[in-house]
Amino acid sequence: MSIALLLPNRQTDDLVEAILKRDPTISIQIYPDIEDPDSVEFAVVWYHPDNELNKFKNLKAISSYGAGVDHILNDPGLPEEIPFARIVAKSLIEQMNEYVLTSILNHKRSFPQFFNQQSQQNWLPVLAKTGNHVGIMGLGQLGKALAHYLRNLGFKVSGWSQSKKEIEDIETYQSDQLDAFLKDINYLVCLLPLTQETDSILNQQLFSQCKRSPYLINVARGRHVVDADLIHAIETDQISGACLDVFRQEPLPKKHPFWQIREITITPHIAAVTSDVEAAEQIVKNYHLSLRGKPLINQIDRNKGY
Amino acid sequence: MSIALLLPNRQTDDLVEAILKRDPTISIQIYPDIEDPDSVEFAVVWYHPDNELNKFKNLKAISSYGAGVDHILNDPGLPEEIPFARIVAKSLIEQMNEYVLTSILNHKRSFPQFFNQQSQQNWLPVLAKTGNHVGIMGLGQLGKALAHYLRNLGFKVSGWSQSKKEIEDIETYQSDQLDAFLKDINYLVCLLPLTQETDSILNQQLFSQCKRSPYLINVARGRHVVDADLIHAIETDQISGACLDVFRQEPLPKKHPFWQIREITITPHIAAVTSDVEAAEQIVKNYHLSLRGKPLINQIDRNKGY
Repeated sequence: MSIALLLPNRQTDDLVEAILKRDPTISIQIYPDIEDPDSVEFAVVWYHPDNELNKFKNLKAISSYGAGVDHILNDPGLPEEIPFARIVAKSLIEQMNEYVLTSILNHKRSFPQFFNQQSQQNWLPVLAKTGNHVGIMGLGQLGKALAHYLRNLGFKVSGWSQSKKEIEDIETYQSDQLDAFLKDINYLVCLLPLTQETDSILNQQLFSQCKRSPYLINVARGRHVVDADLIHAIETDQISGACLDVFRQEPLPKKHPFWQIREITITPHIAAVTSDVEAAEQIVKNYHLSLRGKPLINQIDRNKGY
Repeated sequence: MSIALLLPNRQTDDLVEAILKRDPTISIQIYPDIEDPDSVEFAVVWYHPDNELNKFKNLKAISSYGAGVDHILNDPGLPEEIPFARIVAKSLIEQMNEYVLTSILNHKRSFPQFFNQQSQQNWLPVLAKTGNHVGIMGLGQLGKALAHYLRNLGFKVSGWSQSKKEIEDIETYQSDQLDAFLKDINYLVCLLPLTQETDSILNQQLFSQCKRSPYLINVARGRHVVDADLIHAIETDQISGACLDVFRQEPLPKKHPFWQIREITITPHIAAVTSDVEAAEQIVKNYHLSLRGKPLINQIDRNKGY
């Protein structure tokens, strides 16, 4: 009876150590060296190869290694009826809040512009921008926590999600109210899950509904953005610029036009990195829950996709 | 009876409008077009030319146009016995807090490194830095407000000033305790007044007392830093990098080595910009106080220099 880790191109030593510290009796196999697939009852995956999970005949549950589960849903060989969960750790929330705040303040205080000016020895003072209305798309655990965090720092915050959510002190909008949500915001933060409904949602039509040329911060998935539409929106000042942590292809290919656009800041998918200690805690708990046939912590609703 | 504005190379329209809105009876003369120097009873100055103030026989008081007064103290023709004040406005405090937070978060989350990497289409993830102990040099109104602001955001904060100051929840050090103040900090913020004692205080000897390779944020005056010593301290990792808003010569000359150092972020003296509306409020109040021979708001102690 064992846990399989399918985490291609990742160091697994710290995660293995953290799991064994919590439960030294667990046997762990690490992809691609799965010697006894029949013994695998629980799999931890992060952008694993398609059609690997259905080789485990006795699989009882799956855990993503992070907050996203799109790589699980997109596996054509995902075994039906097997429950799966995502990791939502306190440190993910803290890192995400901090990253988004840094991006907002950088735009407000023109740091990306100053970095560009520095490369040309150009001294050109720019005053702080005044608008402080942040719109958050996606009001799950991360989006809701971000809304409270920014609200407490004095920002005006609005939120949008597929189904209407009530959050104290935050104006919230649902699916068909995108226009009203977008029209007054100065910062647009994407924290949506990637589903059929949200794939390519940051497109020309959405950008054209923004009336105050907001600054886009995407910390969800690259597939939420239609890249060419974003470039066009920046060129036409529908969007004033963007801080992007996620991309359709990662690493972002060297020839991608985003690298060269002054109004775009690129970070290499580091907004919120799973802590092995926190991940291990939830993995071990869910492993034992799955052996007893119980619902998982942070289990995903397969129909909703989050 | 009039106010003279000696603000070389600055737009004065908004300030004049804001002063007249508060008191339409005030006559204003703008340097270099001072047609009636004898009528000048109050002068507002920002890096004014030397030996201009002593041309005003009936001068009763002087106001800096910002928080710094080093340009007033350095004027060899500064009339003796004339009181002078600085502007400390709420917006200066807010802007300063926000700028320092942005600088700290940028270093913590490696944004300067990501900007450099972007210019080379280089995708290299870097984890967030962990230390969160901020040391503030200078505990005047701005320094004290910053200490509280960062403390409330969860940072550990220590403060250093010439004479010991007590601030709730903040560990404070005085003149002869620099070593103890410096040894554990991760961020070193300079908010000192520029005086004989603090001129060139950020030098090799001070940097060598730092034990955790702190990140330097200078939002006070360029003359606090010995430029060559800072470069050496960065090269030898006594200091991990710096965000500098002020320089010995401004604009920073194009051939200055700071421009080229990857670990240094340069901003063009924009950390906290005086709001004309707030400045006018204090200028008009101090003008009327000076006519009645009363002490000024935010008056400077000439012996201390702040």
